[in-house]
Amino acid sequence: MIDVLITYDVATTDPEGRRRLRQVANICCGYGQRVQLSTFECRISPSQLEIMRARLLDVIDVQSDSIRIYRLRTPRDRYVEVLGSDRFQDFSDPLVL
Amino acid sequence: MIDVLITYDVATTDPEGRRRLRQVANICCGYGQRVQLSTFECRISPSQLEIMRARLLDVIDVQSDSIRIYRLRTPRDRYVEVLGSDRFQDFSDPLVL
Repeated sequence: MIDVLITYDVATTDPEGRRRLRQVANICCGYGQRVQLSTFECRISPSQLEIMRARLLDVIDVQSDSIRIYRLRTPRDRYVEVLGSDRFQDFSDPLVL
Repeated sequence: MIDVLITYDVATTDPEGRRRLRQVANICCGYGQRVQLSTFECRISPSQLEIMRARLLDVIDVQSDSIRIYRLRTPRDRYVEVLGSDRFQDFSDPLVL
């Protein structure tokens, strides 16, 4: 599996842009966790990454929108640091009932 | 030097929040490149990272704001991919006059 970070800017000056923004967020929700408004962390397979990339390219306006996909270093928690509030939930931790 | 990615969400529901947002952006501008609205890539020394972290902590409201600092894999261009528009300028490339 690969740990990737997705950050995006979608031009929301018109209704069409706001629709693209929702679509991009919905696609990313399907593959990982929203850790900030326009930032998602995903742990996915190479083939899932290919599919996600194709779906995102289908949605965005390549002239005005920007999606950055970073392959992160692992183990994840050694290479990310959060100042302030942190929305990330580590689902790989054992669930204590 | 370390390649870091900084992403942030600052609550801008009031003038104070909008002021914090400008301050966070200004601090990040001093250390690297804005590649998206709330996303900066910086190539900095460990001590610069310490100073930047302290300055950012001074500014944000840790309850409502969120700054994520990721140590990126290098070489940078092997581990980041951009769909759509790309604002990044590689200053390590030779400048051809």
